[in-house]
Amino acid sequence: MYALKGNLIWTEEPGCFRVLENGYLLIKDDRIAAVSAEPFAGVMTEDFGSRLIIPGLYDLHLHAPQYMFAGLFMDDELLVWLDKHTFPLEARFSDIDFAAKAYKAFVDDLKYSFTVRASVFGTIHKDSTLLLMSLLEEAGLHGYVGKVSMDRNSPDSLRETTADAIEDELEFLDKVSEYRNVKPIVTPRFIPSCSDGLLCALGSISKEHDLPVQTHLDENPGEIEWVKELMPDSKSYAEAYERFGLLDTKSIMAHCVWITEEEMDILQSHGSYIAHSPSSNMNLSSGIAPVRRFLERGMNIGLATDTAGGSSLSMLRMITDAIASSKLRWRLVDDSLAPLRFSEAFYLASKGGGSFFGNAGSFEEGYAADILVLDDASSEMTVLSPELSLPEKLEFYAYRAPDRRPFAKYVAGKRIV
Amino acid sequence: MYALKGNLIWTEEPGCFRVLENGYLLIKDDRIAAVSAEPFAGVMTEDFGSRLIIPGLYDLHLHAPQYMFAGLFMDDELLVWLDKHTFPLEARFSDIDFAAKAYKAFVDDLKYSFTVRASVFGTIHKDSTLLLMSLLEEAGLHGYVGKVSMDRNSPDSLRETTADAIEDELEFLDKVSEYRNVKPIVTPRFIPSCSDGLLCALGSISKEHDLPVQTHLDENPGEIEWVKELMPDSKSYAEAYERFGLLDTKSIMAHCVWITEEEMDILQSHGSYIAHSPSSNMNLSSGIAPVRRFLERGMNIGLATDTAGGSSLSMLRMITDAIASSKLRWRLVDDSLAPLRFSEAFYLASKGGGSFFGNAGSFEEGYAADILVLDDASSEMTVLSPELSLPEKLEFYAYRAPDRRPFAKYVAGKRIV
Repeated sequence: MYALKGNLIWTEEPGCFRVLENGYLLIKDDRIAAVSAEPFAGVMTEDFGSRLIIPGLYDLHLHAPQYMFAGLFMDDELLVWLDKHTFPLEARFSDIDFAAKAYKAFVDDLKYSFTVRASVFGTIHKDSTLLLMSLLEEAGLHGYVGKVSMDRNSPDSLRETTADAIEDELEFLDKVSEYRNVKPIVTPRFIPSCSDGLLCALGSISKEHDLPVQTHLDENPGEIEWVKELMPDSKSYAEAYERFGLLDTKSIMAHCVWITEEEMDILQSHGSYIAHSPSSNMNLSSGIAPVRRFLERGMNIGLATDTAGGSSLSMLRMITDAIASSKLRWRLVDDSLAPLRFSEAFYLASKGGGSFFGNAGSFEEGYAADILVLDDASSEMTVLSPELSLPEKLEFYAYRAPDRRPFAKYVAGKRIV
Repeated sequence: MYALKGNLIWTEEPGCFRVLENGYLLIKDDRIAAVSAEPFAGVMTEDFGSRLIIPGLYDLHLHAPQYMFAGLFMDDELLVWLDKHTFPLEARFSDIDFAAKAYKAFVDDLKYSFTVRASVFGTIHKDSTLLLMSLLEEAGLHGYVGKVSMDRNSPDSLRETTADAIEDELEFLDKVSEYRNVKPIVTPRFIPSCSDGLLCALGSISKEHDLPVQTHLDENPGEIEWVKELMPDSKSYAEAYERFGLLDTKSIMAHCVWITEEEMDILQSHGSYIAHSPSSNMNLSSGIAPVRRFLERGMNIGLATDTAGGSSLSMLRMITDAIASSKLRWRLVDDSLAPLRFSEAFYLASKGGGSFFGNAGSFEEGYAADILVLDDASSEMTVLSPELSLPEKLEFYAYRAPDRRPFAKYVAGKRIV
């Protein structure tokens, strides 16, 4: 049991900050035990002074192998970008030495980012993906990692037969039992890369092994047209995933930029998660997801970098990009959906996405002790600092210092930075 | 005379990078004298190794007093944001001690940014604005600074009478002759803040003193409606500025998000500049300017941070934000206007905006020796680095390291970083 002292800021519902200046946070084992304005008697307390103490942030969707080219090849949109750059580069992860170098750089940077838990795509390669899991585990991060399943519409070097893809997935699952904090997730890349047979098998595997699922949904109009051709009998892209048993409360559907109300009904009926990836959706010319609508409906939603569609691993940058793109959507597409406010986007990045990992992303009692300590950047950077409220100091940090390292970072009660 | 050695990258027209690996750049006085693949015999040469050497970048529009709240109050759109936050905070620059602190922080950060020359708004306050000019001059930066003119629709604390505004502008101009590199620019805030009488006087002053002009145009639909009410006899917002003699080849019109073809005709007939401010236009829910259309027409255009509408001083961030927002415009508004490519956005930030300051922003002979030396960030950050072309290394830097400090920075041949 220990306590932290500092300026506490968190959200318990969208749109409303809770703050406690010079407050105390009590941690018992891997959980938040209490928040208090008074010290906890007899408890070892670390005093972080005027620093900001916020819940950890959660990245619901990113591709670890792509981090090496995040910020490159940004002149192409999704399907061209996949064929020209992404698939050939992911194919290189068949080489375990190459993978070791690339994944080490990724995990080093993720460790010092604001992300405490993530849901991560590897590649089709079992051994490289297991290595990625080891590195994440060693770094003290938590989350899910998927060996990607693909058996069609991909280059030879990044495609398995349906039978091999299924067998490899089962072998992969056999080998992951040694990991405590980084768990496997069933990962069909997306319908264009996966035959009906493979999707059906993966749906069964997820049920039998009680595993979560991650994939892509409704990212780009060209992709959606293609899915219609590939799945002529499905009413929609979402319905195609549903029929293979891939939608559940433990499913993450990345993007949902062009999702219809009918598809929202489907996702919501299963309690599936939307991983909103605002930077990626700009960089790959995809569009802007109707996040306000998801909030109005009370859907499960979190934020995601979608590295390398997004060029930054910073979840604070995702918060400001989610706000910026929601403003453009309001102005240019549909002014009935109000832009996201800072407090709402912060909720999505913390408790919104955190809930995928259990009770996480808040300072409520019993929540995972995932905690970030941030310097009060405003105190060095602006003469207005003494006049700012805690949420304003946090907003300032998110906009002005989104690529800094956190001063301290705790995952499940364990300090890793 | 001296030379620099390194990996040279620049653009002479939109869309096409020039590169010279391990090239030499010859500087004579304050100008680029030559580029060569061979060393210049007998000339002192600084070897920057594998670092990237690019032209300086130019920020065509930013508000120095607003830097202290860049990254704050981002939940409001333009007119509300002005009234609630911007005007009350700018009013505090009547206090020269406060101004000294705020402007020192601004100039310190601008010095270490990628900006070599800028066109800057001060406030209505003469003395504070003169102080700002001194600080910029001392830092070795070049550009223009305007004392802002406002005589209506503003709080008492940030409004002068028409007569005072004119007299103050003339007094301000009397006192700026001591500055060599930072010059005055006539700065009506925008039509809602300036009476016809003031605009008319400022048009005359700009002609008589042969001074450039900067102001705002067509940023936000609410603002444009307001201008229509205020200027019932004008055919358009641009035509209103034209009638007061405020449009010229040395005029910068910030934003132009909602500019009509007729207004583009007016600007183009005068050769006036558009300061495209992509981050600000997102943050303040303004919209996305049709930059591709400006390029097709061959208009004068550069990029701008519009601090504090934009939260970052990084012109590299403006490059990637201009690209991202052009992609959303293509997808959501008008697919006849193709997204900006990296090489095009780079051109806008360098030679595009640089041309406002004379021959600047390129490595062509006779151009101003405005030069940035950047670390090859890719070499530390990605295993792919050895395979990347120079433009790819530059793209990587812009997306992944937009807030770094340049390794070296030369303005008009003088090294300031």
